[in-house]
Amino acid sequence: MKVATFIQPYEMTVTETEKSQIEESTDAVIRVVRACVCGSDLWWYRGISQKESGTFAGHEAIGVVEAVGSDVTQVRPGDFVVVPFTHGCGHCATCKAGFDGNCQHYQSGPIIGYQAEYMRYRNADWALVKIPGQPEDYSDDQLKSLLTLSDVMATGFHAAKTAEVKSGDTVVVMGDGAVGLCGVIGAKLLGADRIIAMSKYPDRQALAKEFGATDIIAERGDEAVNRVMELTGGTGVDAILECVGTEQSVDTAINVARPGAIIGRVGIPQNENMNTNQLFFKNIGLRGGIASVTTFDKEILLEAVLSGQINPGKVFTKAFALDEIQAAYEAMDKREAIKSLIVF
Amino acid sequence: MKVATFIQPYEMTVTETEKSQIEESTDAVIRVVRACVCGSDLWWYRGISQKESGTFAGHEAIGVVEAVGSDVTQVRPGDFVVVPFTHGCGHCATCKAGFDGNCQHYQSGPIIGYQAEYMRYRNADWALVKIPGQPEDYSDDQLKSLLTLSDVMATGFHAAKTAEVKSGDTVVVMGDGAVGLCGVIGAKLLGADRIIAMSKYPDRQALAKEFGATDIIAERGDEAVNRVMELTGGTGVDAILECVGTEQSVDTAINVARPGAIIGRVGIPQNENMNTNQLFFKNIGLRGGIASVTTFDKEILLEAVLSGQINPGKVFTKAFALDEIQAAYEAMDKREAIKSLIVF
Repeated sequence: MKVATFIQPYEMTVTETEKSQIEESTDAVIRVVRACVCGSDLWWYRGISQKESGTFAGHEAIGVVEAVGSDVTQVRPGDFVVVPFTHGCGHCATCKAGFDGNCQHYQSGPIIGYQAEYMRYRNADWALVKIPGQPEDYSDDQLKSLLTLSDVMATGFHAAKTAEVKSGDTVVVMGDGAVGLCGVIGAKLLGADRIIAMSKYPDRQALAKEFGATDIIAERGDEAVNRVMELTGGTGVDAILECVGTEQSVDTAINVARPGAIIGRVGIPQNENMNTNQLFFKNIGLRGGIASVTTFDKEILLEAVLSGQINPGKVFTKAFALDEIQAAYEAMDKREAIKSLIVF
Repeated sequence: MKVATFIQPYEMTVTETEKSQIEESTDAVIRVVRACVCGSDLWWYRGISQKESGTFAGHEAIGVVEAVGSDVTQVRPGDFVVVPFTHGCGHCATCKAGFDGNCQHYQSGPIIGYQAEYMRYRNADWALVKIPGQPEDYSDDQLKSLLTLSDVMATGFHAAKTAEVKSGDTVVVMGDGAVGLCGVIGAKLLGADRIIAMSKYPDRQALAKEFGATDIIAERGDEAVNRVMELTGGTGVDAILECVGTEQSVDTAINVARPGAIIGRVGIPQNENMNTNQLFFKNIGLRGGIASVTTFDKEILLEAVLSGQINPGKVFTKAFALDEIQAAYEAMDKREAIKSLIVF
C-alpha cells in the first residue's frame, strides 16, 4: 500500500509499504477514503519541530472499516467511519469526563500515518465514529465536511467549548487557519451573538463571514486590541478562541478579554512560560488543549454536518491525489490553500 | 474615631482620626459592628509586600449604615449590612457577568480601613448586602458567619465556583487557612462528593472535617500528589481549589488534576510566570482571581448563613477589641488563631 512519508524539511514523498493489519484485539484496519494535511503538520514540514526521516504522515481521515480485532464490537467491517486523531478508550475517567484527547489508556509508539491507502487504528471500539451509509451516498462537499470531524472541526469546537461560549456572547477568534475558521462555526453553534474574526487574508475573511463571523479585524497586536475595545465599548469580550499558539496571539487574547472571560486554547503553545498574574487579577480563565474529537462528534458535530447545519468542509480549497503529496504540503505552506484535501 | 493603623512590619496601632463621612453621592458611611484580620493582611504585616507607614488597615466588616449619599437608594441609614471588600457598581458588563471584584468603575485611591469604628464605603447602592433585622437579633456565632461574607467565605466560594465544582465531584483544597476552610464549605455547597483537604495542623484538620472534608492529607509536594493519586485510583481529581498562591501549591494543584480538571485560584500568586504548556497538554483549566463578593452573597451565601446551612464563622478562633489590634495580628502571624475577630 502507499503512504505519505516525510523525507526532510520541505520534502514529502509516497512510499510503498506492507498493508496495515490488526496487531491488537482493540485495533481496526481502515481503507482511507479522504485524508488531509493539518496546519500542525507544517511545524515539522518546515523543520521547526523534529520528525524522523522516513516517518509516515497524517492524522485525519474518513474511511471504511476493513477488519477489526476480536474485542471490537461497536464497528464492523464495511462501516463508514470518521477516524479521529484521538484514540479514546471511552471508559476511563478522563474519557467519561469528555476529554478523550487525553485518554488514560493512550498508547504511544509508532503511529501509522492517515495519509495512506490503509491504516491501523487503536481503540477502535469507542473512538471511531460511525457515519450512516457508505461513502458513495454522499456528495464530495459532504465528504469534505465529514472529514473535518477527524480533527479540525472538533478542534475548533474544542476552543469554543473550553472558552465556554454561551448564548448571546461576544467572541474573538484568534487565527484564520482551518482551525480558527472551524472555531467560528463552533462559537456560532454554541450561540454566540457576535463573532469577531482576526484575519488579514481576503479569502479567509470571506469564509469566516460565511461561517458566521460578524466582524473582521485585519490588524494585529495593540492595534487589534484597540479595535476590539472600540467594538465592545471598552469592555472586552466574553470568550476568546486562541487557535494560533504564538506569544503575540496569546497576549492579544488576554488583552481583549473582559474580566471573567475565558480563553479556550487549541493552538499548540509556542512559549512555555506565561505571566499568569495578569490572568489572576482580571479573573481571566485559561482552558483548552487537545480536542475531544470522538466526544464532540457523537455529541453534536456529526449530526450538525449530516443535517447541513454546518459546512466546515469549505476549508478544503485544494484537492490532491496521494501521489501529489508534495504539492499538497506546498499549497498549505505557501498559503495557496487554506487546507489541502487528499482524495483516494 | 479609632482606626487600626500600620506603623511598620510587625507593628500595628490604633490611631484617632476624623470620623468618616460621605464624600461622593454614591458613598455610605458604616458604623462597624464586627471586623477582622485577613490572611492577605499578613503579606504587608510581615513586610513581604509594601504598605506605607500610617496607612489604615482592614477590608472586612459588617455594620450599620449611618449615612448615605444622594444617589444611594437601595440601602438606608439604620440598615444592617455586609460590607464587602469589593465595590461593584452592579451595572457595568463585568458586574453583570458576575465579576464584581473586577468592576469596571472601580476607583483606586486611599481606602479607609474597615478595622475602624466608622468607615466610608464606595458604590454603596449595589455593593452593600442587606442583612434582615439588626445586629442584636443575631447570636455572636451568627455575627461571625455574617462577617465572613465580606471576604473569606465569598473568596473560598469563588475558588470552588471558578474551579467549576459540580455534583459528585472529587475535589482537592490546597490551603488550610480561613479561605481554604471556606473553600471546603464552598465545594460542599456545590455538591462535591469527596473533598480532600491539604492540612498538617490538627485544629485546622478538625475544622476542615466539620466543614465537609472527607479526607485529609498532611503531606506536601510529591508525597501529597502520590497520596491523592492513591485515593483516586491514579486518575487525579475533577477540581482543585488553590487557596495558597505559592509555587509549590500551584504545582501540586496541577499535578493532582485529572486531564480536563479546572484549578480555581484565589491565593494571591507569588510567582508571575508559570509553565502553562503542562496545562495545555493535559487540558487543565486555570481560573480564579478576586472574588465576586456581592454577587455570591446575594446569590447563595447570605441565605446559606441565615438558614444555618453553613457556619463559616467557626474560622474565628480568637476575638479582640480594636485596642488589641497588635495582638489580633500577632495571633494570626503566629498561627495561634485561624482568623482574628475584632469586636466593637
